[in-house]
Amino acid sequence: MAGNLIIPSFSLHSSLAAWIQLISSSFLDKSSSSHHNYRNSKGSTDFCVRNIDHAAFGRREIEIAEQEMPGLMALKKRAAADKPLLGAKIIGCTHITAQTAVLIETLVALGASVRWAACNIYSTQNEVAAALAEGGYPIFAWKGENEEDFWWSIDKCINNEHWQPNMILDDGGDATHLMLKKYPAMFSSIKGIVEESVTGVHRLYQLSKSKKLTVPAMNVNDSVTKTKFDNLYSCRESILDALKRTTDVMFGGKQVLICGYGEVGKGCAQALKGMGCVVMVTEIDPICALQACMDGFRVVKLNEVVRQIDILITCTGNKNVVTREHLDRLKNGCIVCNMGHSNTEIDVGSLRTQELTWEKVRSQVDHIIWPDGKRIVLLAEGRLVNLSCSSVPSFVVSITASTQALALIELYNAPAGRYKDDVYLLPKKMDEYVASLHLPTFDAHLTELTDEQAKYLGLNKAGPFKPNYYRY
Amino acid sequence: MAGNLIIPSFSLHSSLAAWIQLISSSFLDKSSSSHHNYRNSKGSTDFCVRNIDHAAFGRREIEIAEQEMPGLMALKKRAAADKPLLGAKIIGCTHITAQTAVLIETLVALGASVRWAACNIYSTQNEVAAALAEGGYPIFAWKGENEEDFWWSIDKCINNEHWQPNMILDDGGDATHLMLKKYPAMFSSIKGIVEESVTGVHRLYQLSKSKKLTVPAMNVNDSVTKTKFDNLYSCRESILDALKRTTDVMFGGKQVLICGYGEVGKGCAQALKGMGCVVMVTEIDPICALQACMDGFRVVKLNEVVRQIDILITCTGNKNVVTREHLDRLKNGCIVCNMGHSNTEIDVGSLRTQELTWEKVRSQVDHIIWPDGKRIVLLAEGRLVNLSCSSVPSFVVSITASTQALALIELYNAPAGRYKDDVYLLPKKMDEYVASLHLPTFDAHLTELTDEQAKYLGLNKAGPFKPNYYRY
Amino acid sequence: MAGNLIIPSFSLHSSLAAWIQLISSSFLDKSSSSHHNYRNSKGSTDFCVRNIDHAAFGRREIEIAEQEMPGLMALKKRAAADKPLLGAKIIGCTHITAQTAVLIETLVALGASVRWAACNIYSTQNEVAAALAEGGYPIFAWKGENEEDFWWSIDKCINNEHWQPNMILDDGGDATHLMLKKYPAMFSSIKGIVEESVTGVHRLYQLSKSKKLTVPAMNVNDSVTKTKFDNLYSCRESILDALKRTTDVMFGGKQVLICGYGEVGKGCAQALKGMGCVVMVTEIDPICALQACMDGFRVVKLNEVVRQIDILITCTGNKNVVTREHLDRLKNGCIVCNMGHSNTEIDVGSLRTQELTWEKVRSQVDHIIWPDGKRIVLLAEGRLVNLSCSSVPSFVVSITASTQALALIELYNAPAGRYKDDVYLLPKKMDEYVASLHLPTFDAHLTELTDEQAKYLGLNKAGPFKPNYYRY
Amino acid sequence: MAGNLIIPSFSLHSSLAAWIQLISSSFLDKSSSSHHNYRNSKGSTDFCVRNIDHAAFGRREIEIAEQEMPGLMALKKRAAADKPLLGAKIIGCTHITAQTAVLIETLVALGASVRWAACNIYSTQNEVAAALAEGGYPIFAWKGENEEDFWWSIDKCINNEHWQPNMILDDGGDATHLMLKKYPAMFSSIKGIVEESVTGVHRLYQLSKSKKLTVPAMNVNDSVTKTKFDNLYSCRESILDALKRTTDVMFGGKQVLICGYGEVGKGCAQALKGMGCVVMVTEIDPICALQACMDGFRVVKLNEVVRQIDILITCTGNKNVVTREHLDRLKNGCIVCNMGHSNTEIDVGSLRTQELTWEKVRSQVDHIIWPDGKRIVLLAEGRLVNLSCSSVPSFVVSITASTQALALIELYNAPAGRYKDDVYLLPKKMDEYVASLHLPTFDAHLTELTDEQAKYLGLNKAGPFKPNYYRY
Repeated sequence: MAGNLIIPSFSLHSSLAAWIQLISSSFLDKSSSSHHNYRNSKGSTDFCVRNIDHAAFGRREIEIAEQEMPGLMALKKRAAADKPLLGAKIIGCTHITAQTAVLIETLVALGASVRWAACNIYSTQNEVAAALAEGGYPIFAWKGENEEDFWWSIDKCINNEHWQPNMILDDGGDATHLMLKKYPAMFSSIKGIVEESVTGVHRLYQLSKSKKLTVPAMNVNDSVTKTKFDNLYSCRESILDALKRTTDVMFGGKQVLICGYGEVGKGCAQALKGMGCVVMVTEIDPICALQACMDGFRVVKLNEVVRQIDILITCTGNKNVVTREHLDRLKNGCIVCNMGHSNTEIDVGSLRTQELTWEKVRSQVDHIIWPDGKRIVLLAEGRLVNLSCSSVPSFVVSITASTQALALIELYNAPAGRYKDDVYLLPKKMDEYVASLHLPTFDAHLTELTDEQAKYLGLNKAGPFKPNYYRY
Repeated sequence: MAGNLIIPSFSLHSSLAAWIQLISSSFLDKSSSSHHNYRNSKGSTDFCVRNIDHAAFGRREIEIAEQEMPGLMALKKRAAADKPLLGAKIIGCTHITAQTAVLIETLVALGASVRWAACNIYSTQNEVAAALAEGGYPIFAWKGENEEDFWWSIDKCINNEHWQPNMILDDGGDATHLMLKKYPAMFSSIKGIVEESVTGVHRLYQLSKSKKLTVPAMNVNDSVTKTKFDNLYSCRESILDALKRTTDVMFGGKQVLICGYGEVGKGCAQALKGMGCVVMVTEIDPICALQACMDGFRVVKLNEVVRQIDILITCTGNKNVVTREHLDRLKNGCIVCNMGHSNTEIDVGSLRTQELTWEKVRSQVDHIIWPDGKRIVLLAEGRLVNLSCSSVPSFVVSITASTQALALIELYNAPAGRYKDDVYLLPKKMDEYVASLHLPTFDAHLTELTDEQAKYLGLNKAGPFKPNYYRY
Repeated sequence: MAGNLIIPSFSLHSSLAAWIQLISSSFLDKSSSSHHNYRNSKGSTDFCVRNIDHAAFGRREIEIAEQEMPGLMALKKRAAADKPLLGAKIIGCTHITAQTAVLIETLVALGASVRWAACNIYSTQNEVAAALAEGGYPIFAWKGENEEDFWWSIDKCINNEHWQPNMILDDGGDATHLMLKKYPAMFSSIKGIVEESVTGVHRLYQLSKSKKLTVPAMNVNDSVTKTKFDNLYSCRESILDALKRTTDVMFGGKQVLICGYGEVGKGCAQALKGMGCVVMVTEIDPICALQACMDGFRVVKLNEVVRQIDILITCTGNKNVVTREHLDRLKNGCIVCNMGHSNTEIDVGSLRTQELTWEKVRSQVDHIIWPDGKRIVLLAEGRLVNLSCSSVPSFVVSITASTQALALIELYNAPAGRYKDDVYLLPKKMDEYVASLHLPTFDAHLTELTDEQAKYLGLNKAGPFKPNYYRY
Repeated sequence: MAGNLIIPSFSLHSSLAAWIQLISSSFLDKSSSSHHNYRNSKGSTDFCVRNIDHAAFGRREIEIAEQEMPGLMALKKRAAADKPLLGAKIIGCTHITAQTAVLIETLVALGASVRWAACNIYSTQNEVAAALAEGGYPIFAWKGENEEDFWWSIDKCINNEHWQPNMILDDGGDATHLMLKKYPAMFSSIKGIVEESVTGVHRLYQLSKSKKLTVPAMNVNDSVTKTKFDNLYSCRESILDALKRTTDVMFGGKQVLICGYGEVGKGCAQALKGMGCVVMVTEIDPICALQACMDGFRVVKLNEVVRQIDILITCTGNKNVVTREHLDRLKNGCIVCNMGHSNTEIDVGSLRTQELTWEKVRSQVDHIIWPDGKRIVLLAEGRLVNLSCSSVPSFVVSITASTQALALIELYNAPAGRYKDDVYLLPKKMDEYVASLHLPTFDAHLTELTDEQAKYLGLNKAGPFKPNYYRY
């Protein structure tokens, strides 16, 4: 069975029950076999990371991240006076990065206790995981887990004799679904789920539709702070970085095709246009296509330009957007990468055939060579290139992470009845609060409404300032 | 309850009832006194415009507009085969421009009959009104109506012996409210209202809240095609034009403060940055403020920069954003104008005092001169500068007008029960349809989903492609 | 004989002698026949303008221009203390606009006396000419001169009993050449010529080559302040304005072809890209072509894209860049205009054939209609569209005009021997001085070199800061 | 007068004569002591690199560079038919990178033989040097040379029994000056020098002034292909890359001060503005300052904004632009780096005092910590950050390298008398030729002049197309 769990496709989970079977039988000796992390300096063994000895390096990365995460740091400062998560027991299942570490330590400072696993088998920063383990957090994650490891780690978070979770912070829905399937009783006692990813949210809505969702859930993925900041600005920053670090390509004058003009595509297009690329766009949605036109990008079909483009970037959330047939027709030297939500956008599997030669030229960079000598440059084997090949700005992650923290606080403290067993968007006021935590970084000064103006607009002076349907 | 002329401020007409009284007594001889428009070439007298003799010039303007309104022209083409508005009797109350004329003629081609008045006492293009009157449409509008004229004209549309309206297309809510107050029986027989403006929508939601809305209404103002195209792109185009035509100002290096970073402010900021201005922004909403930061604009308070800016533009939808105190402190030569939704943003009234001299230097351009010789350059007396001093791109209007036409068709043809007596947003699918009508202009080629992809995404191949809460 | 004097082509002047003949015989009654400008308020009749009664309006335009011409105003301030042009008698032959008026009054304030004619039969602002005449300046210019008028006016400046010119400020070389041909003795007594245009400079270099240049001349056209400010920034500002005022075209998504990527083309391309156009470029010079590539513009041949473009702009300085064959193939509605240096770039003459219909739809806007109904939109009949259809920012003109004033001062005051009978570029130091006069407008603060830094760089602390070949 | 290592400051070697003394005494056993590079696979020992075993890796880097250097590759293709450098014996002293290797191999393919040393003690790519040595080229360079090594290496190139150089390709002037001082007889037999750097050109002009230049020299540094491509576009690309790779900083909303608005500053400013930074500029030259204003950047003094900026970038070519006093006042976390021509712009030496702590957080990244805990982030210890911390686009280097190759060809083949013992700029026609070699990369199609047009413009159809003073 294939090994790509960045965002597990749905079909994988039809056999979740089977997996649980498999996983259950392999739990025994995980930590003792493949890792050098038996014990942290305080004697704890309740974790599983690659190498606890790298904790100091990871700690420095966490400290650097803290400098650029003003939202979380501001939340953390309030911990002393008011522990809004006191008593919260949170299962976390997310990418394990320095920024996540700042989130974890913030949640704990706010009163929570946590257990944490990775939502992705490739993205764990081992040094950061080590630093967290050394800090006493039960963390079960390392880069290069196999699927068995993956489920084992999540299970280690959930299934614990003396610690009964009451909240889930999920990214992709795997912790949620494992608990739902394997520990249904525990699941029904959960006070709330906070979910960040497209996929995880999709699964929650399906659960809700089929009446199987027995706890309230917050859809953080569709928060304005996620869609309009994490997607747009983060991708604007990271696409250039990812392409440069891997290929040293010059941008000026390059013909770039961006498949998909959602927030991710918009961010990529803006950055590349700013660097002198000739950018074109493909779209299925006429509204986004019309935006692309008005923004100065030609809207084409991939087939029409496949022979002339220098760089091809997918940002659709769809599958098989770039097929073998397209790849066959790309010109020599074309760079191909994926910024969308999963590794299915480019049909990389179709390139693993005998007549093509793969040559790894750098980390994350493969040349695929056709019999006639034509090469394409494939980045990160079609996985998320910004996650694999560039840094993600901590500041933007801070916005999303603060939203996650606030969603946990809201669900944990909401009076009975405020939230039913359904999927919610974060109240507008909290989105605004998260944004306000990040303004001091820019020395930005908000204008306050006068009483007269607030009355004229029918608004509270402290917000919320916009209706829920406002698009930003 | 107050009437709401977009341009005249609320306080002018404290009581609609009193107005109706006044208006009723002055209906008799309107058309015979102040206008040269007794009769069109076919002998009709059922209209009131400034000068029917200017019809030919207006007709040419309409023809020019048609070239840039592909959405309406495409809808019009279907009229022969399928008259979806057959039997619809529409009261229109909007700005009367060449683009509106294309909309009116489209609606009629789709089967409707109409009667039309202006929603604004200044914005009517007299030649276009003449062309419509000459074309046989009962149109009651001229530039420079007084308030009495204004209400008289709307009343002439509504109150007609042989023609009972069943739809309203409103911009500001005045037709809706006049009918509701003065002809309540007629109002309750209406099949639907389509409303375009912020103000009108606000009033509809208030009616709905107080259970006085007895017909379904479409909120077109918050359609994606309005907020993301009409507001953003139209303002991006027109701010430069409005400033140039009135003042010939050079943009390069100018310090500009934009109050409000909604769609209008975003459009203005982008255009001015593109021309080499140093742009700063004020905001009350931390989310929009954070967007401004990430887009490279400093977020300041007006007070902090009032002495250094060269151009001040309001786009807030608020009142008294620029006060006399601010105006006193602006530097010599500062240009002040309003791109927001009403003339209240700049407290122009406060400038009409004895110590200040007003000097009209060009049409729509006043120099206000302080005793020490300082001048500020006020455009359009604080009214909407893009409407007053620039053209609005027909293409963008076509998007909104097509949306209005589709909203009318939807409400008119919806099976009983689909819409209750409430305020609705247009179904996503129609937004997408409107967008698709405008893509051929750009020779844009949409990509189609394969069956496999549609299934993967859980979408119909023909759309809709996005959830309702999608922000674009 | 044909009537295009914007920049008279060389061939016209082969028969200059014949013209002089013709002109001489028609001098008698010019001012008494076609103009209402017999006498200004002080009784002078030494001028010829369209209508002296419009002087007040022109004066206001001059005052508005003064606000945006800080360089000239700063020079003017020094007049009281130090009249560097005392005794200078300057023949001016330039476009007559409000900005020129500010230059003229500055020169006079610096001690000069002047006589002035227009260098172009279409570009004179009649009200400004009237204001100058009313102010006592001998000015001979009106909009719509014929060729006879044109040469008569220049001759009126030169040939004057009691006033012997000693300097020429020329734009196109016509004053220079008329004097050289008709008044060679007077010509040889001139202290210096300042020439602004490409054409005039070209003619000066030809004179120099053939040893006929008997006075020193300054080539202002190739000053950095002209090429890098007047051409680049002025065109960046005016192309949008010219297109909007004439056609109200929406820029977003439009496909634009710019012929020529010199400073003018660069300015146009940057402005249009900033507004969301898809811009392409044609070039003959590989260096400029490579710049276009690196700036993100595709470099194509006109033939390759002629059927798809929405707007076609020439900025080459060449002739017949757009031929009838191209025009035949443009798509319906394409806008065609010229930003280059003369009206020869588009072969407009080829459109004046029987099968094509010309329809003037607005001032400066013609629709040319093909038998099959296709229309193209031709602006300003192919003449300079920014001069004809938009304002030119006074600020940028101030930079060039200050350069002209300084060039006059330099030539007039230079010690014998500094300049020989040749064509010179303005000393770098003066370019820098002109620039420094314009910085306060932007509240720009220059950094000063320390003694140590000046020594390290081998520079004088007061400049010049760059070698002559520096490109900026 | 002193030698001029770009990186080591002048004071290090107050007397070249003394150095030569020192160097001469240390030549004996260099290659035998500190390197593992005794012999390449063909048995040659005429080279000195770090580790010949890394040749294969270096060869791959050279092959990758070749893909992006179309100009050199096109020149190389002509080698078979026409060896324009046959007999040329070239001393090279430049940065040793993959791109340089492509240049070296091109020169050899054109008929030259070469000996090569590094012009910089830090910038050598050891693997590339190894690949060249393995390829049989006498190369003397490794990363981390000391000054003694540096001069020894150059001397090894020059002083060779059986190989008498007749051309010099220099970058900084060190090969030129060593030969001039130590081997004056050899120097006077040189056919030409090609110099690329600001510093080297400055030294050549000084030699020329003092009549000590006895050979013709080409100033490639001021070629349009260098100033307008290598400086502008290369820096536009590399500033983002250098900042991201070292600090992962988010650009959006950051306040950046760029010292110097020459080509390098312009490139940096454009890139950072495009990514949403708030960019300000310092300048000493009013012309460049005015350009910055018109381009939308505020021109300030460093002192005025030193407390508010997030990133400080020097691009002045000056020394001590950022002093200890400035550094003391920067805010916590400010990133400081240099893109100018030498490491003197930031007074890094002033930071090496007892009260400040240096903490190396990553390669090329130091935190300097003040007693109160404030940190600044210093990149590359103030050396050229793009050279140290980012890749330089091969394509842009190809433009400069092709220019160098053509300059060598021109000087080597010029008929006697064409060049005297002076410093020349490359003929315009060759600049154009270099540009044309790089257009096919972009599929750019040049337009050709018709005979009629060429005549009208007074140009040869094949160029050159511009006068020498044209600025681009």
